[in-house]
Amino acid sequence: MRVLGIDPGLRNLGWGVIDVSGSRLSHVANGICHSSADEDLAQRLLSLFDQLTAVLKKYAPTSAAVEQTFVNKDGAGTLKLGQARGIAMLVPARAGLSIGEYAPNKVKKTIVGVGHADKRQIDHMVRLQLPGVEIAGPDAADALAIAMCHAHYSRSANQLDIALKRASR
Amino acid sequence: MRVLGIDPGLRNLGWGVIDVSGSRLSHVANGICHSSADEDLAQRLLSLFDQLTAVLKKYAPTSAAVEQTFVNKDGAGTLKLGQARGIAMLVPARAGLSIGEYAPNKVKKTIVGVGHADKRQIDHMVRLQLPGVEIAGPDAADALAIAMCHAHYSRSANQLDIALKRASR
Repeated sequence: MRVLGIDPGLRNLGWGVIDVSGSRLSHVANGICHSSADEDLAQRLLSLFDQLTAVLKKYAPTSAAVEQTFVNKDGAGTLKLGQARGIAMLVPARAGLSIGEYAPNKVKKTIVGVGHADKRQIDHMVRLQLPGVEIAGPDAADALAIAMCHAHYSRSANQLDIALKRASR
Repeated sequence: MRVLGIDPGLRNLGWGVIDVSGSRLSHVANGICHSSADEDLAQRLLSLFDQLTAVLKKYAPTSAAVEQTFVNKDGAGTLKLGQARGIAMLVPARAGLSIGEYAPNKVKKTIVGVGHADKRQIDHMVRLQLPGVEIAGPDAADALAIAMCHAHYSRSANQLDIALKRASR
């Protein structure tokens, strides 16, 4: 299974691709799609769409996971993030991938062990599990963590599936 | 000029196409792209993307306008609407169209004359200016009003442009 993790954002949209084979994870690539605040919103969304589409074309993931957005009191910020998140969900859906969604706290809890982990802890655990990885920035580290979280839950679901099949024999 | 107006929404995304020739407006088509709450978010966004892309392909507008979303205190609602609005902006941008954005109050003020007009007044004025039009629903009426608002401001901008060119001779 090759997993694409996405940390959505309008200015910086982080992405990370990992290969999953049993309990073994390996890094494939990571990066950040940028859009400039100087451009029109429509142009920014189009740019993110094109960049993320190129990532999917290049790395051909078989599954995707997108961070669930934290809704805060800043309505205008939520709206901006929502628009970027729409693109982050659309691009893998267009490629026919199933898409997992994970809340930030669930990602942290899965990767670091605690739901309130900070960015440095995420970065540390990502580097520990993907030795030698070069990370394009905090948003790319988050995206790799989301991909790792998805690998974990997919594996658990798969093992449960195998156990249930065995039990029903 | 052929204008596509869009009233973004995740469940119901209204659209309306009008032709503009000088001060003359004529109706081309209108409708509503639906997505079902029973489906995954990613599938809903993909469905809206596909339906709206088909509308652009069929009616080939030369310009587009999208309603600016009203940000309210319901963060989850704002996020949903933001995701749908991301698609509404992306599709015409992919077709290379310039996209106008108008706040709901500006649309109402332009079409009805007052910023606090209700749905019935919008519907009435749309029917008055586009005689014989059959409207698919309130979201489609809003989309036609947005297209009419865009026609108005594009015309004003164009007339100002002509006047400035004359003055500079």
